[in-house]
Amino acid sequence: MLSKLLIRGATILTMEGPDAIIETGEILMEDGWITHVGLPGSAPGYFDMDEVIEADGEVAMPGFVNCHTHAAMTLLRGYADDMSLMPWLSEKIWPFEDRLTGEDVYWGTMLACLEMIKSGTTCFGDMYFFMDHVARAVEKSGIRAVLARGMVGVAPTGAAALTESEELVKNWNGKADGRITAMLGPHAPYTCPPDYLGKVMDLAAKLKVGVHIHVAETRTEYDDMLKQYGKTPVQHLDSLGLFKLPVLAAHCVHLDQEDMEILAQKAMGIAYNPQSNMKLASGIAPMAKLLDLGATVGIGTDGTSSNNNLDMLEELRAGSYLQKVGTMNPEVLPAYRTLQMATIDGALCMGLGDRVGLIKEGMRGDIILVDIKQPHMCPQHNLVANLAYAANCGDVRTVIIDGKLVMLDGAVLTMDEEKVMAEAQERAMRLAGK
Amino acid sequence: MLSKLLIRGATILTMEGPDAIIETGEILMEDGWITHVGLPGSAPGYFDMDEVIEADGEVAMPGFVNCHTHAAMTLLRGYADDMSLMPWLSEKIWPFEDRLTGEDVYWGTMLACLEMIKSGTTCFGDMYFFMDHVARAVEKSGIRAVLARGMVGVAPTGAAALTESEELVKNWNGKADGRITAMLGPHAPYTCPPDYLGKVMDLAAKLKVGVHIHVAETRTEYDDMLKQYGKTPVQHLDSLGLFKLPVLAAHCVHLDQEDMEILAQKAMGIAYNPQSNMKLASGIAPMAKLLDLGATVGIGTDGTSSNNNLDMLEELRAGSYLQKVGTMNPEVLPAYRTLQMATIDGALCMGLGDRVGLIKEGMRGDIILVDIKQPHMCPQHNLVANLAYAANCGDVRTVIIDGKLVMLDGAVLTMDEEKVMAEAQERAMRLAGK
Repeated sequence: MLSKLLIRGATILTMEGPDAIIETGEILMEDGWITHVGLPGSAPGYFDMDEVIEADGEVAMPGFVNCHTHAAMTLLRGYADDMSLMPWLSEKIWPFEDRLTGEDVYWGTMLACLEMIKSGTTCFGDMYFFMDHVARAVEKSGIRAVLARGMVGVAPTGAAALTESEELVKNWNGKADGRITAMLGPHAPYTCPPDYLGKVMDLAAKLKVGVHIHVAETRTEYDDMLKQYGKTPVQHLDSLGLFKLPVLAAHCVHLDQEDMEILAQKAMGIAYNPQSNMKLASGIAPMAKLLDLGATVGIGTDGTSSNNNLDMLEELRAGSYLQKVGTMNPEVLPAYRTLQMATIDGALCMGLGDRVGLIKEGMRGDIILVDIKQPHMCPQHNLVANLAYAANCGDVRTVIIDGKLVMLDGAVLTMDEEKVMAEAQERAMRLAGK
Repeated sequence: MLSKLLIRGATILTMEGPDAIIETGEILMEDGWITHVGLPGSAPGYFDMDEVIEADGEVAMPGFVNCHTHAAMTLLRGYADDMSLMPWLSEKIWPFEDRLTGEDVYWGTMLACLEMIKSGTTCFGDMYFFMDHVARAVEKSGIRAVLARGMVGVAPTGAAALTESEELVKNWNGKADGRITAMLGPHAPYTCPPDYLGKVMDLAAKLKVGVHIHVAETRTEYDDMLKQYGKTPVQHLDSLGLFKLPVLAAHCVHLDQEDMEILAQKAMGIAYNPQSNMKLASGIAPMAKLLDLGATVGIGTDGTSSNNNLDMLEELRAGSYLQKVGTMNPEVLPAYRTLQMATIDGALCMGLGDRVGLIKEGMRGDIILVDIKQPHMCPQHNLVANLAYAANCGDVRTVIIDGKLVMLDGAVLTMDEEKVMAEAQERAMRLAGK
């Protein structure tokens, strides 16, 4: 039997285009698929519904797609801040991560999924380790995810990471009712030498999965790559043939004109992480230019040790404002364009653009309901500007992922919120040696 | 008889210094004054309390001080975005403002006060017009405010604005149980010629009030002033003797080294408006340098047509991150320093540093309670980092201003929230010609 879920009374922001807004409408989901989007009373089979959500005064829009994070790093939130990159990594982050167990990663990821669901994120792109535990947390929480085992070619774990990546793909790609997709995650060009990247590329081609990689995040990386290979990070990767595969390139802060053209023409997608780039003082990524060149750009929060939350509304706003001041042009990344980046374009960046990111017949039902009857979104001159520039994550009231109710009016249905926070707190304190 | 209010069980972030945190404590307020801050059970006269607030799992901290805004511009939220400055002002903002009535300004300010209280702001610095109506809204809402009638010397209203400013000071300075302070508000050096500024300075000296002025917000202003007067905006104002008065200088984006030294040594305070400067593409203000030089810097949201909300947690975070990326140094504006800017330093900027911005005996009771038992603030490695970098305005649960409960567990007690939103919505639509 079909499971049928109907949303009634919402204003529908389909994200199919600036004018594709239904003032009051309804959305029918059957077995996870959106099968009807229309005016009030137009959905067939009202009396057969398993669940009807009355959404008067709320906006229905596609859930946010966070296309670059390291979910389990919630355990490091607030553990080290306001430091220069190398002491931050070598004295604080890496020693902490060395002590992580699989169960720690499970609970850290559970906490991240809880926070993401509560703030309206329905899909995330992750790169970390103990990925079997990450996948279990994704399965349990009900969220959608694109998972990659981070692989550091220069580390002793380099060979094992290749094996684990293959296991992740075999065990989890397409699992959790199709909510999990796998990619390969070579960490970065400066941590994965050409021969190692060659192995990664062979494996990706064999397993038919894409590649998620950090690229040109810092000026140091850019300069070091130039010195070592005589090429920029992007041109180095291009010369190795990486972009023949579907590539999600995270950060892309330091680029020359040719780099931008390569990324615009050849990358599946670029993950823009504005708050991480600001907080770590990495730089202002040239996203307005990349968009002009036709690149597909999504938005990511990065991990919570460099952010420090997973709030996509805050992130997309910071992303728009940072481009405006960075280019000294207030017209770039306008409100609607930025919302697209945080939804459908993020999905496209991870190869999921045929499935999520729009409210449209034939897509999976990843939908959030946002309460717009709030002082900070009053008056309602412009719904899109209010969402992009004034809303906050607390306005997200209801979350549906893959056609299933995951949060109803602020209450998460798939996880025990108290238990998740207690486990994360206890493990974080142990790991910090407290 | 004294009115007595006791907060029990909270973690107290006094803002008297990074180590001045009381793990669990209590705060006594009598007739609006903080008369005791101490450990559990230490407050005298428990059984005499008029009100006891149980705050287990919450943090008590000074309310946020928003030291530069134009409150009634809530009516323009989302009315015009993503535009270049001059068409934005001349085609959208100014024609809309020309249609405002005093009652419109009252309801726009009421909406702003509602939004500010809900997001933990207990004091704001305002510059607008129909200030009698602004003051009435401040009185009614229970918030604290420093009010200035914006004066444009080159406008036909220039002379009247001086008279209205004097009336504002006479009618409202020290009123609303002392919650209202008045300043003079010459708009900016490029809209107030030297002779007009001379009149403003004479009036300020006569009335014994400070001056709130926009300074060096855009590159255009900076260049134009150089061309017209052969001096930068700051040096022009200094040569006129403005800084002999207590001056709150808003924006201060475009400065040379001498400007920075003048401001650091002579200005009462500087209002840093990071999100407005980003969204309007005004530039990145050199706040890290100004702080190094010893300047007093507070944080402002600016009006909601260039922001688009009045959320100080979002603003202080953007302020810190923007300085980090702007200076390429992740160590500047660390978490605690940024919280200081949003509380005590903001109070100092407006001449209220002896009254609000700290939780300390002898200060007025402007205190907020923040619920920190939330997934996005878990784990609790560092309370200060969680507040500065991870909290959102929805975490503010209870607000006390001048020793009076203004919001309790999310419910605003001084205003009818539905009525305020309905009035603002109706007036905004009329003003927009809809």
